[in-house]
Amino acid sequence: MFDVNALYAAGAIMDWDQQTMMPKGGAAARAAHSGILSRMAHERFTSDETARLLEEATNEVALGTEDAALVRVVRRDFDQSTKLPSAFVEEKSRLSSEAHEKWVQARETDSFATFAPTLEQMFSLARQEADYYGWTGHRYDALLDCYEEGWTAVDVQNMFGTIREPMVRLVEEIRERGQSTDAVGLNGTWDNNRQRKFSEHLIHAIGFDTDRGRLDTAPHPFCTGWSVTDIRLTTRFKDMIGSAIFGSLHEAGHGMYEQGSPLAWDRTPLAGGVSLGVHESQSRLWENIVGRSLPFWRKFLPELHANFPNLAAFDVDTFYRMINQVEPSLIRVEADEVTYNLHILIRFELEMALLAGEMQVADLPEAWRAKYQQYLGITPETDKEGCLQDVHWSMGGIGYFPTYTIGNLLSFQIWRKLTEEIPNTDDLIAVGNFAPILGWLQDRIYRHGRYYTPKELVLQATGKPLDANDYLAGITAKYRSVYSL
Amino acid sequence: MFDVNALYAAGAIMDWDQQTMMPKGGAAARAAHSGILSRMAHERFTSDETARLLEEATNEVALGTEDAALVRVVRRDFDQSTKLPSAFVEEKSRLSSEAHEKWVQARETDSFATFAPTLEQMFSLARQEADYYGWTGHRYDALLDCYEEGWTAVDVQNMFGTIREPMVRLVEEIRERGQSTDAVGLNGTWDNNRQRKFSEHLIHAIGFDTDRGRLDTAPHPFCTGWSVTDIRLTTRFKDMIGSAIFGSLHEAGHGMYEQGSPLAWDRTPLAGGVSLGVHESQSRLWENIVGRSLPFWRKFLPELHANFPNLAAFDVDTFYRMINQVEPSLIRVEADEVTYNLHILIRFELEMALLAGEMQVADLPEAWRAKYQQYLGITPETDKEGCLQDVHWSMGGIGYFPTYTIGNLLSFQIWRKLTEEIPNTDDLIAVGNFAPILGWLQDRIYRHGRYYTPKELVLQATGKPLDANDYLAGITAKYRSVYSL
Repeated sequence: MFDVNALYAAGAIMDWDQQTMMPKGGAAARAAHSGILSRMAHERFTSDETARLLEEATNEVALGTEDAALVRVVRRDFDQSTKLPSAFVEEKSRLSSEAHEKWVQARETDSFATFAPTLEQMFSLARQEADYYGWTGHRYDALLDCYEEGWTAVDVQNMFGTIREPMVRLVEEIRERGQSTDAVGLNGTWDNNRQRKFSEHLIHAIGFDTDRGRLDTAPHPFCTGWSVTDIRLTTRFKDMIGSAIFGSLHEAGHGMYEQGSPLAWDRTPLAGGVSLGVHESQSRLWENIVGRSLPFWRKFLPELHANFPNLAAFDVDTFYRMINQVEPSLIRVEADEVTYNLHILIRFELEMALLAGEMQVADLPEAWRAKYQQYLGITPETDKEGCLQDVHWSMGGIGYFPTYTIGNLLSFQIWRKLTEEIPNTDDLIAVGNFAPILGWLQDRIYRHGRYYTPKELVLQATGKPLDANDYLAGITAKYRSVYSL
Repeated sequence: MFDVNALYAAGAIMDWDQQTMMPKGGAAARAAHSGILSRMAHERFTSDETARLLEEATNEVALGTEDAALVRVVRRDFDQSTKLPSAFVEEKSRLSSEAHEKWVQARETDSFATFAPTLEQMFSLARQEADYYGWTGHRYDALLDCYEEGWTAVDVQNMFGTIREPMVRLVEEIRERGQSTDAVGLNGTWDNNRQRKFSEHLIHAIGFDTDRGRLDTAPHPFCTGWSVTDIRLTTRFKDMIGSAIFGSLHEAGHGMYEQGSPLAWDRTPLAGGVSLGVHESQSRLWENIVGRSLPFWRKFLPELHANFPNLAAFDVDTFYRMINQVEPSLIRVEADEVTYNLHILIRFELEMALLAGEMQVADLPEAWRAKYQQYLGITPETDKEGCLQDVHWSMGGIGYFPTYTIGNLLSFQIWRKLTEEIPNTDDLIAVGNFAPILGWLQDRIYRHGRYYTPKELVLQATGKPLDANDYLAGITAKYRSVYSL
């Protein structure tokens, strides 16, 4: 098990290096090395030896113990790795590489037609993949379960059923009656080194342990790691001052979750985040609920002013409204907190229809435009700004999108529970005392690693299953205030 | 073979990361991961399968072909990896770790006595190791051969026999009659970022391909790599402006040698430098013969002045003399070009005597002081500045030191041949046209990777075996001029 872990770790380090440090000439050798290590890890993990050990362990472990949790997690990983025939895995890997290339080209030239046949293939592969895993309700369930254990299409439909109408109404209301604040002053030319130092200062302040991790830059920000003692974050610098700052807080949220697993579980499958949704709940909690709050900037705005005097004109109330602007837009990754989940809703509805064969790939661009008009009141003029914008489907990541919304909703539900037990979070944040908040999250979520299933963890941490109403209540209260509604 | 290479590559990336990037908390996990990968690589490489394939290949390959060279190199690596019993390798690895710890402590507290028993053990292990490898002339031969294939203690004795007296005399002459130049102006507080950028500028100018490599910082500078397309250099910043600059040129010399192997050999054992001595000849050639030359600074001093105005007071002749100061000193790694080999000579004579049992470990400090007095005219007051200064013996690196001098001597021999064929190197360097020089080295040395043995390569590149007289002639001419003798 530690051998497989070491091979995964090497692969993760190679991947981190590739995205942050590697000279461009090194790509081909890196692909070869990574491919070999990844094959070795797969061979070792899916061997008859693993199957035998797993069988033995299953019979030996006592219920409710750490060993039992370990066996459950390894069983899940083993099944996921062995249910797909090798030939299928190879075919998918080959087609995904091709599809990714074709997607890049199609996006550059805004020509959906050249990508359509490949996208059709990817959905066809996804259907096969779901069938290999097995499913009862909806094919989509099998795919979603890979990212969010125990979740089904019906769960996602229920979740969106609760938030769809209220969120569309809130967006309309903000647009029609909200008192807007011009955020253009956040754009400018900002010294990268200062941005990096300020971002490092913030993530250190909230509790990311910089003795056991670091922050670098990458074109597409991410968080990775290979030990609870070595977690790597990345951010990027753009014209908008918030890009590096909120990006860093977001990744630090992921990072603190990863750093929170018990050291005793290090290098075992029990360490790390339990699901994409729970992971995203932590990145969004620190980025949005903490990082875009008024008390947070009461504490840090003077330091921001000292570093970037061009921002000195904005007092804390103004700055708070500037970093919380709501504006229906075409691009998901640039969307604000209020419209974000509508972007996800659109993708979920479309991938469900495509997977079920209720919609043809050729009809996607038109359906995309219609849904943007329906939910956000705007229509992309190009497919580049429309159905070609996301990388996910081209890489076979079908069933992935809902985890973003699960995370957003969960972050509010967890925060609500936290503030019930720690009522003075505003005061704590305003003086930069994040330890009680991090400590609570550590106790309820981080230290459990993958011990519980995602659904068990949510129930235990918050006393109930995912409840979209906490999100609705929180987001509505915040934005009624920001827009004086 | 590619599997073993991928495991080595992963290990090298992990090691690079550890020395340049890793947060300190990550050390234990890194040690565990590296240890596992290194065991896996060793198991695969030394397997019966490798032995069988090697046997088959030996019978199949035609003499004088690339395949034959590959078989020869793999056979050498395989024998080195299999001649030592696993139990011995484990014991050595364990004792080396302990010895390194004890050496660090002994150095900190300047207490040789606490380190002496461990050093005795390391020499005892070295004797066993030599016996496992086998030897005919002197036990030392077996150890030296690991670092410099085909070299013997007698070769080293002959080499030092040629340079010992003339170098001791030259040092004396410089001290007694040389016109000295105060180099204190090179010390100061220099902006690290500017030092880094200027160093990058220089290594790019001489021909290090920054699309296939990069420069970072590390406490102990080194060069590593895992593909001819991905070579990593490091440097460090100190009070002396030359530390980063000459350190970078030194590592870039290693790096260009590594980058010069044919792409077709990438990820095979034929790629890379052939020995430590030949490697060092390239780092020293670029650092000293090119980088500390007058024409080099005719080209680059104006740019250095622009970046560091504090140095503007020194014209090129003064600056040239400042960076070529000769001063007998106690610490090897800070030694100048003239005294450097005397530091190595001392170590070689002492490790020969210790290995042969002609000297006791307890007598080392006194013997060390006596030799420093004899060869350099100075005596260390502490063992910290004396026999405890080098890491090598504590890590079992006995027989390693001579490769430094082999490299220094070879660099002059190679340069002499190069200037016979390219007589206008001064003019080329003065205008920053390094391509003909790099091209010549590429053709005669770099592109051959490990195809030839070190001795074959030297013979072929320069027309003769190592000849210390080229070094004596070159170094004497240079320093008679620098010191107006």
